[in-house]
Amino acid sequence: MEFERIIMGIDPGTNVMGYAMLGINGKKPTLIVMGVLKLNKFESHYKRLNRIYERVLSLVEQYLPDELAIEAPFFGKNVQSMLKLGRAQGVAMAAALSRDIPIAEYAPLSIKQSVTGNGNAGKEQVAEMVKRLLDIRPEQMSDFFDATDAVAAALTHFYESSKPEAFRKGSSSWASFLAAHPERIAKRRTK
Amino acid sequence: MEFERIIMGIDPGTNVMGYAMLGINGKKPTLIVMGVLKLNKFESHYKRLNRIYERVLSLVEQYLPDELAIEAPFFGKNVQSMLKLGRAQGVAMAAALSRDIPIAEYAPLSIKQSVTGNGNAGKEQVAEMVKRLLDIRPEQMSDFFDATDAVAAALTHFYESSKPEAFRKGSSSWASFLAAHPERIAKRRTK
Repeated sequence: MEFERIIMGIDPGTNVMGYAMLGINGKKPTLIVMGVLKLNKFESHYKRLNRIYERVLSLVEQYLPDELAIEAPFFGKNVQSMLKLGRAQGVAMAAALSRDIPIAEYAPLSIKQSVTGNGNAGKEQVAEMVKRLLDIRPEQMSDFFDATDAVAAALTHFYESSKPEAFRKGSSSWASFLAAHPERIAKRRTK
Repeated sequence: MEFERIIMGIDPGTNVMGYAMLGINGKKPTLIVMGVLKLNKFESHYKRLNRIYERVLSLVEQYLPDELAIEAPFFGKNVQSMLKLGRAQGVAMAAALSRDIPIAEYAPLSIKQSVTGNGNAGKEQVAEMVKRLLDIRPEQMSDFFDATDAVAAALTHFYESSKPEAFRKGSSSWASFLAAHPERIAKRRTK
């Protein structure tokens, strides 16, 4: 199946990384693939970072996404866990940046809000809504729960970038819009 | 000049990144190059991350270092700044990991201790000691102050990896030692 646009979603963590590819035709998003990368089998922090980098790069090369949407929490328990999370995000971003793919970040609350209409929705609600919005087939369900947030991040980016105001001032694509308005990324990052 | 081993040092920050290449022959370290990447001219966070990734990758490809030593603080003012620092470290690490270069981290206090013998040494003391230890020539001094910590990180790694206990159990190189003892990295990370 051919798509006008492909959005990659990533939910990067230091134990599990969820990922998803969403194909867009007109106003219709279709799930191309979703999955998880289990990192807790690797003892070494560097091995984990290396696996994240390699997997994101191979996904980017296989599916050639036009944009990357990342779920990015801005508050954490402590500075140590935020440093580790920042590294996991950093290596995932590096893989996308190395292929000139623009990145948008969404806070967990914005993603829940965008997908369910409720910023305080539980994980099950988000999963149920994602399943319904994308007509997820049973054979796509194996890693579904762990990868839901990655799909939801990609969906959120699709909705946000389809809003009319995102295309004001004659920007012809989300990528060119992002390039022209980097401050918009920060704006959407409100918790 | 040919070297038995080349150690790259990086002091990654979100405003300035310092870097250095140290060539080792026997017990003698020689400064090959040092410099800084100024990031504050880029407004976008992603542009900065992209520049870090690209510069580290191009340095790696130009000088072919055997190991990377990173100065890595483990405590920061707040979770926000640690997340940003983690991302900067992450993209630098991704560039090294993509070329299979083993990474070692050193806390600022360990670096000061290793280079000056005093964990509470000021920046000037570290700079003075680095200058003396490496016979820095005047023409190498332009970015010296900003890149001192990167040189000091590489020097620290050289000293630490030359200690007899690092080579116990028949490990023939620091790389193989690291691969066999990933827990040693964490150990050295005490503040």
